[in-house]
Amino acid sequence: MHAYRSHTCAALTAADVGTDVRLSGWIHRKRDHGGVLFVDLRDHYGITQIVADSDSPALPVLEGLRVESVVTIDGSVKARSAGTVNPNLATGEIEVFARGVTVQSEAAELPLPVAGEQEYPEDIRLRYRFLDLRRETLHANIVTRTKIIRDMRRRMEDAGFTEYSTPILTASSPEGARDFLVPSRIHPGKFYALPQAPQQYKQLLMVAGFDRYFQIAPCFRDEDPRADRLPGEFYQLDLEMSFVTQEDVWTTMEPVVAGIFEQFAEGKPVTPAGEFPRIPYDTAMLKYGSDKPDLRNPIEITDVTDHFVGSGFGIFAGIVESGGVIRAIPAPGAGAGSRKFFDDMNVWARGEGYSGLGYINIKDGVPGGPIAKNHGEEATAKLIEALGLGPNDGVFFAAGKAAQAAKLAGLARTRTAEQLDLIDKDRFALCWIVDFPFYEYDEDEKKLDFAHNPFSMPQGGLEGLNGPDPLSLKAFQYDMVCNGYEIASGSIRNQSPETMVKAFELVGLSKADVEERFGGLYRAFQYGAPPHGGMAAGVDRIVMLLCGAQNLREITLFPMNQRAEDLLMGAPSPAGAKQLRELSVRVVEQAPARAVNVDATVAPSAG
Amino acid sequence: MHAYRSHTCAALTAADVGTDVRLSGWIHRKRDHGGVLFVDLRDHYGITQIVADSDSPALPVLEGLRVESVVTIDGSVKARSAGTVNPNLATGEIEVFARGVTVQSEAAELPLPVAGEQEYPEDIRLRYRFLDLRRETLHANIVTRTKIIRDMRRRMEDAGFTEYSTPILTASSPEGARDFLVPSRIHPGKFYALPQAPQQYKQLLMVAGFDRYFQIAPCFRDEDPRADRLPGEFYQLDLEMSFVTQEDVWTTMEPVVAGIFEQFAEGKPVTPAGEFPRIPYDTAMLKYGSDKPDLRNPIEITDVTDHFVGSGFGIFAGIVESGGVIRAIPAPGAGAGSRKFFDDMNVWARGEGYSGLGYINIKDGVPGGPIAKNHGEEATAKLIEALGLGPNDGVFFAAGKAAQAAKLAGLARTRTAEQLDLIDKDRFALCWIVDFPFYEYDEDEKKLDFAHNPFSMPQGGLEGLNGPDPLSLKAFQYDMVCNGYEIASGSIRNQSPETMVKAFELVGLSKADVEERFGGLYRAFQYGAPPHGGMAAGVDRIVMLLCGAQNLREITLFPMNQRAEDLLMGAPSPAGAKQLRELSVRVVEQAPARAVNVDATVAPSAG
Repeated sequence: MHAYRSHTCAALTAADVGTDVRLSGWIHRKRDHGGVLFVDLRDHYGITQIVADSDSPALPVLEGLRVESVVTIDGSVKARSAGTVNPNLATGEIEVFARGVTVQSEAAELPLPVAGEQEYPEDIRLRYRFLDLRRETLHANIVTRTKIIRDMRRRMEDAGFTEYSTPILTASSPEGARDFLVPSRIHPGKFYALPQAPQQYKQLLMVAGFDRYFQIAPCFRDEDPRADRLPGEFYQLDLEMSFVTQEDVWTTMEPVVAGIFEQFAEGKPVTPAGEFPRIPYDTAMLKYGSDKPDLRNPIEITDVTDHFVGSGFGIFAGIVESGGVIRAIPAPGAGAGSRKFFDDMNVWARGEGYSGLGYINIKDGVPGGPIAKNHGEEATAKLIEALGLGPNDGVFFAAGKAAQAAKLAGLARTRTAEQLDLIDKDRFALCWIVDFPFYEYDEDEKKLDFAHNPFSMPQGGLEGLNGPDPLSLKAFQYDMVCNGYEIASGSIRNQSPETMVKAFELVGLSKADVEERFGGLYRAFQYGAPPHGGMAAGVDRIVMLLCGAQNLREITLFPMNQRAEDLLMGAPSPAGAKQLRELSVRVVEQAPARAVNVDATVAPSAG
Repeated sequence: MHAYRSHTCAALTAADVGTDVRLSGWIHRKRDHGGVLFVDLRDHYGITQIVADSDSPALPVLEGLRVESVVTIDGSVKARSAGTVNPNLATGEIEVFARGVTVQSEAAELPLPVAGEQEYPEDIRLRYRFLDLRRETLHANIVTRTKIIRDMRRRMEDAGFTEYSTPILTASSPEGARDFLVPSRIHPGKFYALPQAPQQYKQLLMVAGFDRYFQIAPCFRDEDPRADRLPGEFYQLDLEMSFVTQEDVWTTMEPVVAGIFEQFAEGKPVTPAGEFPRIPYDTAMLKYGSDKPDLRNPIEITDVTDHFVGSGFGIFAGIVESGGVIRAIPAPGAGAGSRKFFDDMNVWARGEGYSGLGYINIKDGVPGGPIAKNHGEEATAKLIEALGLGPNDGVFFAAGKAAQAAKLAGLARTRTAEQLDLIDKDRFALCWIVDFPFYEYDEDEKKLDFAHNPFSMPQGGLEGLNGPDPLSLKAFQYDMVCNGYEIASGSIRNQSPETMVKAFELVGLSKADVEERFGGLYRAFQYGAPPHGGMAAGVDRIVMLLCGAQNLREITLFPMNQRAEDLLMGAPSPAGAKQLRELSVRVVEQAPARAVNVDATVAPSAG
């Protein structure tokens, strides 16, 4: 018989009754029934009940061991009596009568219980991550994570993509977030950077003729702790395709992403491939007040600016007159409830830094509230009709400059739906946001800046860039959104050196700047570059959505804490004098580290 | 029709004759046949011949373009005449008559030709890697590399392993090679380290109960340029299993590795799974003079020390008397040739720093050379018989202290086989080297040191460590060797805290040292650690063997040069003052970088 096990702890069934077996695992739970000891023996695969009665030499040994000790049990499989069969356990029909036990590893008193999964302080969980990872939910989440990534790989391969690993020790990129730097020993005073994303490498792969690239890519950003990302590293499903339009990227990736979601959604409905709504950015900002709309929320925002031209409600009339907009956010059925709901929403909006949220509450067909009163009966009736509101609905109004009103309307849309419980939580609503603006106006610097990826192709190409109004220019740039989270972002790239230079000129950079900052890519485009595009999806966020986890650390194997420390391995740590001398760097004394206290509740942004 | 292509450049066959098609790709070659232009259009998938005759509007455009420009061709498929069919090309039965052409990207004058693959200076190849990667052999090698890694993953998954990604920003490990360090911005004066291997994490995964782990793991070692590794990063197929003996690791991994080799060996014989010889380290050092024996070499070394006790050949007799050994390296058939071969070998041995290589050359049954003469006729005949030498064989002798003689014998065995062309190059001979010594004696420090992995389990466990002669202690430690290269290394781990402390005590480290240096792992072993073991295989070396490549840069996508520079992206590079200030480090002036000039000819060592 094998030294440690003839079966795993999930393998034995009624068919094995009578066989002699050897099992190894952790003592999950012990129950002493007066001279008979029941032990739940656990391994990666499952749990088997071990019974040691007073005749068994295993009894005193097992009695003396703490839970989480590792043992090997020799015994024979017996059927459980009808009353003790556990239908929730794969091995619930049997138990193993222990004849002998070998102690493989004795557990000391536990700093953190494994069975039962009580809440525990996070620093203890991270310091004893090897115990934390034995807990049922986290263990299962990690296994699900590996399955999702495996499924991603298979679907990408089946879609004709090949996985290429790009370098991790690479060059600092002057765009984007802060780089992690790695001092070079051989070149004193010089540094490698860890990649924020393999953006330039994947484009170089296309220029090198590899056609369809993907990678489950580790990415690194040295950013301040934030609610929606873990410090340090995260993973992207990164991909790029040659000779494609953005339509090709969408039709290729919808089956992959919908397929992954369907595979792991445990029966919850998923937007089918081929049916992802494609919502222009401008429309999204108008209808949902967000470029990451949660389409499970049935509320749609409407622009009602025209209704308030010269309105009796002076505040709105004034806002419209000075070029502002009024957006209406319906609150279905809310009119039937109390006025307090509307007033609370207004208080909330002020708390968010806005001047307030106007409203009309319709009760049994009668519109109430100051706006209805001042706007006039006829005009109010017309407005209500235009919005298609019912006799007990409500409606909020966000007023102000377009961008600000859109943002407030978006927040109010989400909050209204949450308060009224209108969101169907048990489904995955996927869509594309498309036609992002290419440029935005930087108010601080008083100049144009790239709205998103500077490597994206502006719609209309060079001709578009030469047009009269760069701020109206759209990019071949798109995001994929699920349930209000951006889960992927991509674009068709600008592969023309001439167009690239022009695009950078408009934000104030010269051809020489482009050559200096993006030398590798710019040089490559001189020697035959195919039209290409792609996207990157946030692996961590997708896993978190599919696991229903609320915190990135619940789906990550060995995460750092929010102070960017690995409490298990003790990183970061001081370096030796010799090490630093070899690297030609010296530590400079500074003020002590800032205190940070932010909770990681959603996944990092996809690049 | 699609904007860029209806078919790839490998898709069209005689069945498509008559169809209108659109193809996109690079102009690989152009041939002007007086008014008719033939263009080989290339993409990732293949090549299609385009014909532009004098009627075609595509002709003047194509004539004006340099090779490696990217174009889209509209045309119709025609059958080639019988005489011009190219049986070596998937599309060799057809050609596409161009009706129109769209220029996607014009190529400037090339710094490096793509078609034809002339030898080119390496720095130019690396600087223009995007062109280099278009070349047929390198492009094919990279594709093969991705296929091998994909195959590895599938085989590991089929063997019940799950892939887990371990952190890349982690703690400095005090053992092993030099770490790459990453300054922490949030913790001034502290540093992360990039992992030299995920050794501790994979063991922690076992302690966390995950059972069968693998990872295609990026590993980082800041070592001086060396012939057999690229600077910076390399990949390992890393794996670990719980509740296993070393026998389990071997029987699990033989089908995986043999399977990969068989899949990509292009018909060359591979040692079948289940038949990998398991050669104890001591035997390997005796029979092959190496712990990385090339088993394609039929020569076996024999210890003939006893034959030279009191021999008339005084040098050997003296060596034997002072405790040395004599090893015989047969040279089959060499006696028939000239004496010069033997003398050249002797000169070579001196050039390697040894005192020389004795020999006997047998010609037509008559032994020649100074050893035969002085050793005595009868004794020589007995020696020749014992070695089973034929009437025209030769034999070399390596003499000296055991370790030195073994090493020289090993080198002589290889050189002899190469000179006599005895190695069957067209096969893959795989074996295990097992029972490595646990300790070795450090002559400099005058103390015991670990011979290999300090985390390995000594054979006999704690009892073994308490034995009288630690230097005779073996470890559950093994290497996998192919054709003279170590392609993997592994062990059963020491998971007992008590045994771990004892093992370190013997090399002069205290329990406190162990706790400080390996805190994460040592702490974990207190709370129920399963017996576990595994190995790590060098992905790059396996790919190199299977591609038949002579240099790591021929199987690596974006390698650094031997001065650890990425010439394409310009890494490493100086960091900005603000960046360094944020990281609380300052660059210290130093002597300029050393000059290095070593060629990477074999793959990095597996850990």
